[in-house]
This record gives sequence, C-alpha cells and structure tokens, in this order.
Amino acid sequence: MVRRAREGDPRAVARLITLVENNSPRLREVMALLVSHAGAATVLGITGSPGVGKSTVTSALISALRGQGHRVGVLAVDPSSPFTGGALLGDRIRMQEHASDPEVYIRSMATRGHLGGLSAATPQAVRVLDAAGCDVVIIETVGVGQSEVEVAALADTTIVLLAPGMGDGIQAAKAGILEVGDIFGVNKADHDGADHVVRDLKSMTRMAERGPGDWREPIVATVASRGEGIAEMMEAIEKHRAWLVESGELERRRTRRIRDEIEAVALATLRRRFAGVHGDDRLDTLAGKVLLGDLDPYAAAEQIVDAVS
Amino acid sequence: MVRRAREGDPRAVARLITLVENNSPRLREVMALLVSHAGAATVLGITGSPGVGKSTVTSALISALRGQGHRVGVLAVDPSSPFTGGALLGDRIRMQEHASDPEVYIRSMATRGHLGGLSAATPQAVRVLDAAGCDVVIIETVGVGQSEVEVAALADTTIVLLAPGMGDGIQAAKAGILEVGDIFGVNKADHDGADHVVRDLKSMTRMAERGPGDWREPIVATVASRGEGIAEMMEAIEKHRAWLVESGELERRRTRRIRDEIEAVALATLRRRFAGVHGDDRLDTLAGKVLLGDLDPYAAAEQIVDAVS
Repeated sequence: MVRRAREGDPRAVARLITLVENNSPRLREVMALLVSHAGAATVLGITGSPGVGKSTVTSALISALRGQGHRVGVLAVDPSSPFTGGALLGDRIRMQEHASDPEVYIRSMATRGHLGGLSAATPQAVRVLDAAGCDVVIIETVGVGQSEVEVAALADTTIVLLAPGMGDGIQAAKAGILEVGDIFGVNKADHDGADHVVRDLKSMTRMAERGPGDWREPIVATVASRGEGIAEMMEAIEKHRAWLVESGELERRRTRRIRDEIEAVALATLRRRFAGVHGDDRLDTLAGKVLLGDLDPYAAAEQIVDAVS
Repeated sequence: MVRRAREGDPRAVARLITLVENNSPRLREVMALLVSHAGAATVLGITGSPGVGKSTVTSALISALRGQGHRVGVLAVDPSSPFTGGALLGDRIRMQEHASDPEVYIRSMATRGHLGGLSAATPQAVRVLDAAGCDVVIIETVGVGQSEVEVAALADTTIVLLAPGMGDGIQAAKAGILEVGDIFGVNKADHDGADHVVRDLKSMTRMAERGPGDWREPIVATVASRGEGIAEMMEAIEKHRAWLVESGELERRRTRRIRDEIEAVALATLRRRFAGVHGDDRLDTLAGKVLLGDLDPYAAAEQIVDAVS
C-alpha cells in the first residue's frame, strides 16, 4: 500500500490517510516507510473565517500550480467545532473542477477523536501526500478557535484570508488570525468595503515591530471566483518561499514542527500507557482528590509518572 | 514560611510566589502543605487589550470587594510578550490606592522561563493566595496571543474588557477574546463609540448558540475611573457565581483545571528526566534526523519514552 501510495495511486493515498484519521496502530510502520520519501513538498496553510472564500481561493491556486506542472495535495481539515459543521461538504463541491485531474489529490479530514487533534494528525497526513509526490500540499482550515494557530505551526507559509462585509475588522482579527499570517489575502475585492479591510490590515501590519531581514507580510487583493489577483498571490508565495530558505527560517520551522510531532507521539504513548495501567478515569479521580485537599498536585503527578515508568 | 503565609503575612506570601516564579524544587513541599487549605477562593480572570482600563476596573472591583469585607489577592500576570513590556509597572501604580490595605495583596508575576508559562505557574500562585485567606483572587492579564485563553482556563469567572476608540471591534475580537468571556465589560463608556462596542458585542453574543440553562454573557458598561457600573459588574459576577454552582460548572471547571495542572507537572517531570538522561539538545538532534528522513517520528518518540521509563 505504501509502495502504491508513493506511485501516486489515489486509493492507496486515501487508505493511508484513513489510517492517520483513525490513529491506527499500523501508523508507526507506515510512517517509518514514508519518512525517507518525504520532505520535498512545500506546505501551504490557508485559513480564514467561514464565508471569506477559502475554497474558491484554494481552487484558483490549484489551477495556477497545475499550470506550472505541479502535483497538488489538499487537506481540508475540519477542526470538529460545532461552528463548522457541514461547511466542508460545500468546500469540496467548490473544488470539484479539479476532481478529475489525477495530479490533484483533495481530501477532507476529520480530526475529532485523534489524540492531539489537528496538530497530531495533520503532519502525518501531509507526510503521506508529500511522499506520494505532491510538490505542494495545501492545508485548508476554518479559522475557528485555535485551529488557525495550529495550522500555522504546520505550514511553511500561512495565508490568512479576509473579505469585506463580514462584520468588518472583527472577523479579521478573530482568534489571533493576524498573528499567524505570512501573507494576507483580501478576497471579494470587488465588494464594498474591501479598501477598508486592506487599509485596516496595512495599519495593523505596520504596527508590528520588524527588524532588517524580517519578513513583511504582503497584502494581496483577490477576486478568486474570476481568478483576479491569483498571479500576485502566487508571486507572494514564491517570495516567501525564497525568504524562508535564505533566512534559515524554513529549516527552523520544519525542525520545530517535527519536534512537536515527536513530543506529541511520545506524550500520547505515555498517556496510553497510563490509561492502560489505571483506566481512563484515574486522572479525574486524582483531580478530585486534589480538589478536596486530600492530595497535592505533585504527588498526583508522581503517581502518573510512576505508572508509566 | 507556609504557616506565616496562611496567617496572611505578606512577606511570606511574596516569598512563596517567588518560589512559584522560579519553579523552585521546594515547590513540591510547599504545595503539599498548602493544598488542604486552598479551594475556598473565588478566582476572577480579567483580560483585555492594552489601554482598555484593566487595572482601573480591577482597582474599582477591589474597592467593592473590600466594602463587602473580603480579603483580595491580585496577580498581574505578564505573559512576557514583547508587546506588553513595561505595561505592568503602570498597572501597579494605578492600583496603588490599595497598597496600604493589609487585606489586599497585589503581585506582578513574570512567567517567562517557567516551564509551561502562565498555565503552569498561575494555578500555583492562586493556591498560595487562596491558602493565605484571600476570599477572591483576581488574575489580571493583557489579552495578547494566547494568554487570555489560558487565563480563562484558570478562572472561575472571566471578565473580558473592551473600550471604544481602540480600533473599534478589531481589538475586541482579537485572539479569541470573545470566546473566553463569561462577562463583558465596556469600559470608558462615556467616550464616543461606546454604544457601538456594546451593540457589536450584543450581536455577537446573540449569534452564539445557547441551550436552556446555558449562561448568557451579560454586557456591563462602566466608567471605572468614576466607579460607574461597578455595582452592576459585581452583580454580574455574583450571578455568574450562582450559575456556576447550580449548574455544576464550577466543579467541572475546577476539576479540569487540576487535571491540567497534574498533567503539566507530570509532563515537566518526564521532560526533565529526559533532559537529564540525554541533554537538552537531544530532541533537536532527533528532529534533525527525522527531517533528513533517517528516522521516523515514532522511533524518535520511542527513544524519548524509553529514556524516561
């Protein structure tokens, strides 16, 4: 199956990502076989509030990337929040124009139930697509709660999308979305109020302290449904890529990402071991004792550490 | 020292909180002695962007709580972001009117360098103040980055403060601030644009799905510098407290908080053990190998788990 996935067989890729979603015990073996074939793909994160046109922009970027001959993988990650229920089906329909292209692999991924959620499952799914020969992997996720912070930690380049008429600046700044963007896209730039969103973004990015050699986030206006601004967006992505390589930031981001992944896997192993010894409700029992003042948190932690050691 | 802190001796309290800040090896012993004397205090979180008047509101709330005869502890937590440098000195000056009151304990706390940051150190500092007989502990923190999400996880009741003229709704919604509030305060309500902020908040809280019995976040307009609206804020705090108790949410929040604390301590112990075996750069070395494709993340995680077991 790994061999077929590496040859780009979409069914094999799909089955491997399902193993990731289910946090299968066979993942270990799969990752060991994939890891030496991964690392070449550029990872783009695309996030923004519902309704800004994430999937329309993604679809337009896929077309541009295909025009350059790239193989493209897309992970539409559902952070499993009650706020986003159903949104992804619509997303996938909007990307249907690429459904028959064998060089484009689009996959929705649920992360509910995966220990560690989006942060733990997504790098593994990216590795599957990377090893399957995708030159670019796009992680698309709704900017709700902490998901956009998580997606930024997983991507080489994070594009934050905004649009006018979505409660003005409010949706823009929601949940730290401005702190995670390497590139800002103002989609629906032909709608009223787009100038205002661009102006707000400009004044906000100008406020951030930057040293010489630091990246300055470009703001790109797009009308993705007509392909307008997509060439400029591609140019911004390429410029950021060049900066990442020159500044050494690419290697730093990737090393940090892998550190996080290793720690998440190690922690999951330790938690599983603890649950195996004591049952899942043991931590609640310990917390209850601390709440009553019968046990201190260090003694409780020691019981956990002893149990897994 | 623990005995003197329990009697409310401010110097003993200060020294115990310094042990927390420094993540002292003696903390374990201190927490064991304090835990059975803690649990009575109400924990209030107060957060908002710089300039909304957090310390003025806090100061006014301290006056109101002192009027009810309560002993009050305040932790002004610096999330150690470059954005907040120097802000806290101003904060403390604004709370000076309570400096000579022996029933008010105000402490700035840096969490830089504390493993786990604000999340790990703050519950321990709260426990010190709680055991020292504070009826109410206020955690005040600037809403920057993830700090307001962290503070909300530590408090029984979280008050999110906004003010007009701070870039309108943008600062309001920044970094998920709206998702963490149990009570919203619109301070500087005598300034232009305050109505607009209240209206924005109303429409946003109305959009959130609520079931019967769920808490509905009140919006309280204040001019804290003149004490206006503080009685209403106190009333909202008391109503929320009653709801927390009735709904069982208080126990759920506190159990969850202690679970997080136990897990953080356990994880810190395991990390320390790992560093003790392999040195601090071992994880970087492992990540580098995975990056090169020479090692898979599961095998790397296994090395960590084996090292601590």
